[in-house]
Amino acid sequence: MPNLHLALIHHPVLNKNGEVIASAVTNLDLHDIGRAAKTYAVGSFWVVTPLTDQAILVRRILDHWIQGPGAAYNPQRRLALETVRVRSSLQEVIRDIAADCGRAPKLVATSAKMGDECIGFDRLREGLDAGHPHLLLLGTAWGLSEELLRTTDARLAPIRGAGQYNHLSVRSAASIILDRLAREA
Amino acid sequence: MPNLHLALIHHPVLNKNGEVIASAVTNLDLHDIGRAAKTYAVGSFWVVTPLTDQAILVRRILDHWIQGPGAAYNPQRRLALETVRVRSSLQEVIRDIAADCGRAPKLVATSAKMGDECIGFDRLREGLDAGHPHLLLLGTAWGLSEELLRTTDARLAPIRGAGQYNHLSVRSAASIILDRLAREA
Repeated sequence: MPNLHLALIHHPVLNKNGEVIASAVTNLDLHDIGRAAKTYAVGSFWVVTPLTDQAILVRRILDHWIQGPGAAYNPQRRLALETVRVRSSLQEVIRDIAADCGRAPKLVATSAKMGDECIGFDRLREGLDAGHPHLLLLGTAWGLSEELLRTTDARLAPIRGAGQYNHLSVRSAASIILDRLAREA
Repeated sequence: MPNLHLALIHHPVLNKNGEVIASAVTNLDLHDIGRAAKTYAVGSFWVVTPLTDQAILVRRILDHWIQGPGAAYNPQRRLALETVRVRSSLQEVIRDIAADCGRAPKLVATSAKMGDECIGFDRLREGLDAGHPHLLLLGTAWGLSEELLRTTDARLAPIRGAGQYNHLSVRSAASIILDRLAREA
């Protein structure tokens, strides 16, 4: 899915009280979403954090697996983590994708909450097949801020399970979204 | 999916050299697979480890979120982790499911490798709909041992992405499997 790009957003996201924060990076987010991104061959995977110490931490983790002892220990993991790029803002990601692809991506938010104007997975898949780059925003902590949600072009329908409970991890949600989009092909 | 049961196996599994080991428990496996199990309403979720210190660790984590400070901090997480039960062997899990359900579950292995006699997701779904309990075995480390694979009733087809790379985390694979089975309904 070369037209699909992923951004894991650490700011602006909400904490449990609904306040806008910059969240800490979770090591296994890089591994799990990187491995899924590689498995489903997405165009790119970006980790977005404005916190310098968190960006340094991410680069240290990536260095370990790409150039350090991890590369020899687990070459498959190296291939997955090579897909990860770090940026300090969503604007930088959009600019870099536009430079790579020749045009700015459409922004598609994800959320566990049902919104008024959600698009289905089939509709997003049609957009990808039509050749336009799409950047899927994955929220950490308690999800993307309302302010950020208002700036996106579309919001993807939430993943529903068997009942009212749908508190999946961002790692699980990203994996399921990629699998659904690949199977809509 | 009340007839579907999950077992996260830490022994017997393989290390990177193909040797049988008992792997360490990963904290986020409990959270992510517990959250997915709750979201898709599976019958039960078991963590299998023969290592006493690892079983103690799992119970400490569960206590934190079910009865300790975590329960007030995040009640949704409590609901997810309440689904997790710890046993020292697969035989104990089979015995307990049989006691709960009135009959022993069929054992379905998962693997990232294609086997000769894999069943599809549609076939597993038919088995679930037919009313028989099925226990899905999820391997940690480098996957379930060949010896264990030989004792199962079936092997579920591996998840394929876009190319040859299919090194998903067990957290991602479990989530995708539950979503696919739910959508086959």
